[in-house]
Amino acid sequence: MKAPTAKGQRTHKNTFQAAGTPAAYFSFILHSYAIIGRRIGNKYVCRRHSLSVDIPKDHPRRDSLIVRERLAEFVKKGLMTPTGLIAHGRGEAFDYLMGERTTAAALNAERVAAAYLMNAKRPVICVNGNAAALNAKRLIELAEATGSKIEVNIFHRTEERMKLLIDYMKECGAPNVLGGDPDARIPGLSSDRALCTSEGIFASDVILVPIEDGDRAEALVRMKKTVIAIDLNPLSRTSRMATVSINDEMSRALANMIGFAKGPSNKEKRNDIISQFSNEENIRASVNEIRKYLLDAVSGEKNERS
Amino acid sequence: MKAPTAKGQRTHKNTFQAAGTPAAYFSFILHSYAIIGRRIGNKYVCRRHSLSVDIPKDHPRRDSLIVRERLAEFVKKGLMTPTGLIAHGRGEAFDYLMGERTTAAALNAERVAAAYLMNAKRPVICVNGNAAALNAKRLIELAEATGSKIEVNIFHRTEERMKLLIDYMKECGAPNVLGGDPDARIPGLSSDRALCTSEGIFASDVILVPIEDGDRAEALVRMKKTVIAIDLNPLSRTSRMATVSINDEMSRALANMIGFAKGPSNKEKRNDIISQFSNEENIRASVNEIRKYLLDAVSGEKNERS
Repeated sequence: MKAPTAKGQRTHKNTFQAAGTPAAYFSFILHSYAIIGRRIGNKYVCRRHSLSVDIPKDHPRRDSLIVRERLAEFVKKGLMTPTGLIAHGRGEAFDYLMGERTTAAALNAERVAAAYLMNAKRPVICVNGNAAALNAKRLIELAEATGSKIEVNIFHRTEERMKLLIDYMKECGAPNVLGGDPDARIPGLSSDRALCTSEGIFASDVILVPIEDGDRAEALVRMKKTVIAIDLNPLSRTSRMATVSINDEMSRALANMIGFAKGPSNKEKRNDIISQFSNEENIRASVNEIRKYLLDAVSGEKNERS
Repeated sequence: MKAPTAKGQRTHKNTFQAAGTPAAYFSFILHSYAIIGRRIGNKYVCRRHSLSVDIPKDHPRRDSLIVRERLAEFVKKGLMTPTGLIAHGRGEAFDYLMGERTTAAALNAERVAAAYLMNAKRPVICVNGNAAALNAKRLIELAEATGSKIEVNIFHRTEERMKLLIDYMKECGAPNVLGGDPDARIPGLSSDRALCTSEGIFASDVILVPIEDGDRAEALVRMKKTVIAIDLNPLSRTSRMATVSINDEMSRALANMIGFAKGPSNKEKRNDIISQFSNEENIRASVNEIRKYLLDAVSGEKNERS
């Protein structure tokens, strides 16, 4: 069996090795994922590269362009809103400025986030259009690895889009997806993002919010929940509000968290990991990675990049 | 008459004053623009704020969200491609990291760019979907102020989209728009972006390319043209390839260039301005602005921003 060749996975493996966890074990997970990812019969594009647009193999930004085209197709199908594409582009720029790799700071946050999810009583993974489009499979795999519930919660809510997203998550393998019949509200939010379920988001103690808006992150923190955000911008309100801010590309972040969740550990070790973490310091480390990248770029140490 | 209140214009006025040009004169230009911008009868959204979505007046990112919604509407109407939204988001992040204002480096590049356009024999302003959506009016005003031709040139070229864009530019006030009947090719480009007109892009000596892709910028430089790029990413291939790289939000950049073009000057003065400019140094200055912004942000000197 050939190793997966997607860039995110390769980078991930390196950073994971750097964290001192057995590479062989992790490689096994990656390969398993690659097999699951090719499951036949997905209605939309659960498989990684299912595009109607040809992108030259030698294009310097091929990986990023493939994701772009996939997101554009999700908009066409009504699973994502057009403005979700702008939000993605914004994130892309921060990824670019961190070298399109998992930084040491991000890996640290991912380890802590996995510990929180594993130690939680009622963990929930929140899914919106962007998150589903980027990597539904890995969201589901993390939910399985951590015993988390999945709930769809979107800003531009329509019944049709909720149904499309819930159906899509189920087609990608999620056994149960909450959010379709909300019976509770997140206090202090006027938008439809407030709508949630009492057994999911409302009752959760630890909640993962990939690709988030600042308002809701703040409202969830006010509810005394542990909020884990995946947000490429280390300076965003979401990043500053969250308990743990992962400034990393979502697919890479999830793969690392799955690795940590499945790795050998116990509750006490995880509590240690949690207690040693400072989100503020970690954000500062992310920002310094960007500053270093920029300095290297103008010092001629990096090649030019489009 | 009330002064225009859009954020970009305010910022622009301040930076322009800083450049030592009479503020009163410039204020007049801004006011004229504000009037022209409200011309009745535009088919799409020539007017600045013509949206179907309500954004709360107190939202911290209101200006940026208004532009986002407008671009999304352009995609719906077929003038922009969905992936153009991602490119916009990417630019937005760099704007955010430069404090959403015209930096000293950008203003310097804008002054040089205006000088190049004014001294050119056959200046051309190139327009794509993103540029038209962001500010067709100002593109046209700069063309008038500098005697430049306007040519539409797009990556995802279809006859329908070309017609939509050309019609849109005409409805916004452009007397003549090239690009609909290409009779020449930019050498070395395999995509449809190569298609151009012999009287416009092909014959130009100075060409302004707002919101550009790196391939074409490089091809135009190979044709020995003076290439002026408006690109928020100072590290992009376009920025590195261009003769003058303006790392600024397009609407602000155009307003500044219009101010410089209409200001008192002569050919010799403009040649001086041109000869003193180093694009490499200027890009380094832009990058340092971002580095400073990041440092301030983690030093607690900036307020948090979502």
